[in-house]
Amino acid sequence: MKYLKTMDQKTTKQIYKKSLRLHKFYRGKIATVPKCPITKLEDFNYWYTPGVAAVSREIYNDANKVFEYTNKWNTIAIISDGSRVLGLGDIGPEAALPVMEGKALIFKYLGGVDAIPIVLNTKNPDEIINVVKIISINFSGINLEDIEQPKCFYILERLREELDIPVWHDDQQGTATVTLAALINALKIVNKKINEIKIAMVGAGAANMATVRLLTKYGAVKENIIMVDSKGILHPDRKDIQQQKDIYKEKWDMCINSNKERRTGGIKEALVGCDVLIAASKPGPGVIKKEWIKTMAKDAIVFAEANPVPEIYPQEAKSAGARIVATGRSDFVNQINNSLCFPAIFRGALDVQAKKITDEMCISAAKSIAEYAQKKGINENYIIPTMTEYDMYPEVAVTTALTAIQQKITKIKLSKKELRKKIFSIINSTRKQIDLLTKKNHCFYIHK
Amino acid sequence: MKYLKTMDQKTTKQIYKKSLRLHKFYRGKIATVPKCPITKLEDFNYWYTPGVAAVSREIYNDANKVFEYTNKWNTIAIISDGSRVLGLGDIGPEAALPVMEGKALIFKYLGGVDAIPIVLNTKNPDEIINVVKIISINFSGINLEDIEQPKCFYILERLREELDIPVWHDDQQGTATVTLAALINALKIVNKKINEIKIAMVGAGAANMATVRLLTKYGAVKENIIMVDSKGILHPDRKDIQQQKDIYKEKWDMCINSNKERRTGGIKEALVGCDVLIAASKPGPGVIKKEWIKTMAKDAIVFAEANPVPEIYPQEAKSAGARIVATGRSDFVNQINNSLCFPAIFRGALDVQAKKITDEMCISAAKSIAEYAQKKGINENYIIPTMTEYDMYPEVAVTTALTAIQQKITKIKLSKKELRKKIFSIINSTRKQIDLLTKKNHCFYIHK
Repeated sequence: MKYLKTMDQKTTKQIYKKSLRLHKFYRGKIATVPKCPITKLEDFNYWYTPGVAAVSREIYNDANKVFEYTNKWNTIAIISDGSRVLGLGDIGPEAALPVMEGKALIFKYLGGVDAIPIVLNTKNPDEIINVVKIISINFSGINLEDIEQPKCFYILERLREELDIPVWHDDQQGTATVTLAALINALKIVNKKINEIKIAMVGAGAANMATVRLLTKYGAVKENIIMVDSKGILHPDRKDIQQQKDIYKEKWDMCINSNKERRTGGIKEALVGCDVLIAASKPGPGVIKKEWIKTMAKDAIVFAEANPVPEIYPQEAKSAGARIVATGRSDFVNQINNSLCFPAIFRGALDVQAKKITDEMCISAAKSIAEYAQKKGINENYIIPTMTEYDMYPEVAVTTALTAIQQKITKIKLSKKELRKKIFSIINSTRKQIDLLTKKNHCFYIHK
Repeated sequence: MKYLKTMDQKTTKQIYKKSLRLHKFYRGKIATVPKCPITKLEDFNYWYTPGVAAVSREIYNDANKVFEYTNKWNTIAIISDGSRVLGLGDIGPEAALPVMEGKALIFKYLGGVDAIPIVLNTKNPDEIINVVKIISINFSGINLEDIEQPKCFYILERLREELDIPVWHDDQQGTATVTLAALINALKIVNKKINEIKIAMVGAGAANMATVRLLTKYGAVKENIIMVDSKGILHPDRKDIQQQKDIYKEKWDMCINSNKERRTGGIKEALVGCDVLIAASKPGPGVIKKEWIKTMAKDAIVFAEANPVPEIYPQEAKSAGARIVATGRSDFVNQINNSLCFPAIFRGALDVQAKKITDEMCISAAKSIAEYAQKKGINENYIIPTMTEYDMYPEVAVTTALTAIQQKITKIKLSKKELRKKIFSIINSTRKQIDLLTKKNHCFYIHK
């Protein structure tokens, strides 16, 4: 990977063109496959009638056995109403489906998790909650995806309360987890402490609200955070937020409890003297200006996470004095990428049948991601692993599962050794299976 | 396969025991797998962000492109509320899940169809309809399964009206199709004509009601059918049915329009002089008595389809004079098995994007199944193929698709040659993929 390569218009267009061509050729990215052998007619006696009746009867007598006899233990749903897809906005469920299929592909490839894309033909939050509850029996976890705020908060909160399987909103918890992982290592390089730094956060959407929660639980001081939304810095006089404080609870909390200095103004005013900038707002370039970066503290850390184009290009931020820059893009160094965490966190949660994915589990996952990079040797251009550092995922999964066990929110308790064996086995054999299919050209079956 | 082998108590117990053991080992029968190659980090640029945004945008501009760019074209849902599972009754959605997974396995293995088991945590028919409609965007077909009557009729009818993808209730249409296929060949052997025979039908549930519809469309004369439910023969004086005629429309129609002779009584009285008995009622043995079979016409045909034990054992029926006997069991000859039709009918429907699965499509599928057996040479012990006569499925799929095209209910029109190429390619490469995984022991990844 070339350092700080700019993805220009031409390259983006090329990626789009190739992506369309590939999607059209394969006509989908995820399929079903038997996970048991079939070699003769007699096998169907066991997998289907009459034998399966005995299995159904066992589960009828003890519903919990559904985890032993079916694939429920390893299956999750990826739920979206398509109301906030990538940088594209409310494009609806059909258009969201290829994104959800991509997510399912990543869940399987990196975490060995069977994820079923389910886009919904409704935008009504209560109806979304109702449908998810009715179909939840098939799943051991729910991944909410690309649902707009504020309803994403309400949906997540209610489903977390009302279901006893993990419910995760990747745009909130996933982004927060990988951002924390990157920040841990960035701070280590510049030798600053989390509880002493001043942080500017640009954007007050689902991602940054969850990031604030995780950062402060990890040790960041809320009073030292200055958050900016589309109307300016959050402070106690923001009547517009106060009027909606029942819907935007966490945002109103930030108005009152962050920004000790009571700064007002916009991004420019927020950045002055800050050690860290975390932007998750709208696609750039030009959202954050070079001159503003110049006013930050020495050894400034800049995370510009907007997709597909960061709020400020890395080379610009660097030339303005930022020491470490990270983005959401795979063609720059330091990609802050949710895919680093969600396959592993779900792997860990599923293998101990965790009832929730807690902030503590996210923090331990973030630490584990950071430590993996540390072992390889971190520097300004390597604060976080890339997606294809495959050895990382089982490590993160084990850590997450152990934290869940410590929190006593799991149905299964395993030792670290047992967990390692189980998790490495699942992830490695999944990869082997997929590599075999790829090598033999058996992963696709159309146009042949 | 031994002719007319009795599955005794011991054997059944052995199958149950082995089925439990196998299910526990594999922990599920169906999983997800990528259907596109992944070899390097760069690939994710195309399958996920940023490239996938171009795909989403295309679909946003033309929702129909979701069939070209995602796996929707090949994906169906298997929906059940677990209210009437196998012979086990209302055992609920968890206990129904292993059956639905088995069905998904068969859909893939025999038809190359990606089927997602979705059991529902509600018994309310309107809520079931609502949920299916909301999640239908992901699917090109809906297979309803193991839902009790009368709500199964209502759910099927409304979903067929309100969705523009095929909605199929296997317990109705599937059973009717394979029963017709078996009857076509049985009649050929005894040299009787469909429009001249007298048919006794035992059981007036979902399966037999659909079978009546298909048989009469194929040429059977309704007046010559005598149907028996748990309270006796259907005739115009059945006040109990008249009182519920709004719910049991088709059953009331049978009271008025079948049974020209106006027979009364029970199964015994119904069977006298009949050429054909089609029983789909409750598990035997002993539901139908040997002595009753003796009163049937010469060259009597007996289909005893109850599972897991037929209404009368084949050797009993044979010794009472039945010339041809078929059951639902794989360990007897002449298994009337829905799996012979549903994978192929859906394959055909999906490949032309049929909006419905019509009775005409079912009839052409039944004929195609019968013809496949005829080519191999039919006799009393081979009136219908077995599940592992794999060459049959693509033939049936092509026939079904062609009928749909003739009926002008498809979005895609293909010539027979094009259809054959497409369908054989999909089914054959699916089988190759699965056989590769089985051979390499890569179809499972737990306990290794």
